[in-house]
Amino acid sequence: MFHELSKDNYFYAMSKNNEPKLKVNPGDTVKIDSHDCFTGQIHSEENAFDGFSWDKINPASGPVYVNGMKPGDVLKVTIEKIDIGDTGVMVTGPEMGVMGNRLKDMDVRIYDVNNDKGTVDFGGLEIPINKMIGVIGVAPPNADINNGTPDTHGGNMDSVKVAEGAVLYLPVYHEGALFGLGDVHAAMADGEISVSGLEVEAEVTVKLEKAETLKTYHPVITDKDGVYMMVSDKDLNLAVDQSVHKMIDLLQPQTGLSLSEMTMLMSLVGQTQINQVVDPKKTARFFVPGYILNHYNIELK
Amino acid sequence: MFHELSKDNYFYAMSKNNEPKLKVNPGDTVKIDSHDCFTGQIHSEENAFDGFSWDKINPASGPVYVNGMKPGDVLKVTIEKIDIGDTGVMVTGPEMGVMGNRLKDMDVRIYDVNNDKGTVDFGGLEIPINKMIGVIGVAPPNADINNGTPDTHGGNMDSVKVAEGAVLYLPVYHEGALFGLGDVHAAMADGEISVSGLEVEAEVTVKLEKAETLKTYHPVITDKDGVYMMVSDKDLNLAVDQSVHKMIDLLQPQTGLSLSEMTMLMSLVGQTQINQVVDPKKTARFFVPGYILNHYNIELK
Repeated sequence: MFHELSKDNYFYAMSKNNEPKLKVNPGDTVKIDSHDCFTGQIHSEENAFDGFSWDKINPASGPVYVNGMKPGDVLKVTIEKIDIGDTGVMVTGPEMGVMGNRLKDMDVRIYDVNNDKGTVDFGGLEIPINKMIGVIGVAPPNADINNGTPDTHGGNMDSVKVAEGAVLYLPVYHEGALFGLGDVHAAMADGEISVSGLEVEAEVTVKLEKAETLKTYHPVITDKDGVYMMVSDKDLNLAVDQSVHKMIDLLQPQTGLSLSEMTMLMSLVGQTQINQVVDPKKTARFFVPGYILNHYNIELK
Repeated sequence: MFHELSKDNYFYAMSKNNEPKLKVNPGDTVKIDSHDCFTGQIHSEENAFDGFSWDKINPASGPVYVNGMKPGDVLKVTIEKIDIGDTGVMVTGPEMGVMGNRLKDMDVRIYDVNNDKGTVDFGGLEIPINKMIGVIGVAPPNADINNGTPDTHGGNMDSVKVAEGAVLYLPVYHEGALFGLGDVHAAMADGEISVSGLEVEAEVTVKLEKAETLKTYHPVITDKDGVYMMVSDKDLNLAVDQSVHKMIDLLQPQTGLSLSEMTMLMSLVGQTQINQVVDPKKTARFFVPGYILNHYNIELK
């Protein structure tokens, strides 16, 4: 069954206490509209911050209640389509992102997106768009987590891999999962070093269902290239190491390899990668290519 | 002019005090033979560590003295060819690499390399080879640095990008630069999570010359895809952040963009990547694609 959810339904923190705005059955498809990460507050490069509220950033549309989902289940989210607006906003400033210690003033730029051509016009430079969803997740296990922060429930993972065609698996902590998404980017590169992608309004179509067999305590993505394990931590050293451990825990039992052999294999083919280094927790991902899964007949579903 | 250097000429620490084993002129080409990272001590999977010395790891062949190179210059190393042996060794064990806290015993595996097919035979699984140089560098500015450790002088950067066709730029600290390389891998993935690639003997052909205009305080690589800035630090958080700063310092003056705009551009197209997370210092690299350099007419040479 097909549903629609307007962008008027949004929240700024993932919480078990958020009231569901839509109830769907497993296997249903939902077209979710979302504001940009500034909740549409910025309309021009001049006086962009007049009346601007920093409390109104990273809205996620939802939550969507998936009937029958229980704590301990894994929610399977298939990203079927991402349609984005034709302008995007970027912000930099002091204490924001990797360069924040050298930036003296807040700066705002609005760039045109040419969806037909698949490009962003960056002052005459054409940048290929890579549409992706920054904030996506379920209600976290305990205390509320603001949408700017990623963790095991998803949240602000800011991954270029949360894109059309990808399938995201999220641990479920509460009845109905309480799924939401927002913070869509027309373009962004690994790291998101300025703290902002090219922030756009969007319509995202997802299929929501229960994973058949996959068990995970961290977000997992599969796409045409392979599988990614996402771990967030304030310390990137730990996030990277844990993304490796959790991927090996996921795959090794299905390979017949010893832990030593699996470690060697991952040293040869498994890649430590980075989603972002600018949110309250940084997010690492560990990638294993699809031909490895095929060789060992590992089905993730 | 073409030179050859035998693998009998090697050292275990990069040092201003290493005696040159070959003197070449800028623009000369050298075929450098290298031992594997165990200095050829491991010949079989059984009893691999009988008589093994951990003092004999990561030999680099050299040093090569490049006539006329002076402190403050930048050495340009063009990786023309990497030929590797037809077997490779891997090691894992307690306290080694990302998984070392869960490994109980030392383990050794020897895998065949099929250079005609371009594959490694990992117990029936065919892995594509990606030949790369683990240790490559010049004499560091002050104290000796063992070859297992990367830093501004290069060293054990363990980057998949130090591959055939790439050009590596290294800051020069001493007369003649005192260049060396070794620790070649038949295959390895970003992270090198076991602490070992598939370790092989190799013959590496490099052209050594003085960079025309490029100035850098950290290793820089250019290849067909773009440019990479490499920064090593015990803390990956700092390595990543500094790789971004140093890349922006390298490119921004040639773009005409403000620091805010450059930061935004890098957030859209510049990628935080990882060489390795298992050496005494971890190495991050920041990547900018070639079309960005072309658009702003940035020539790195």
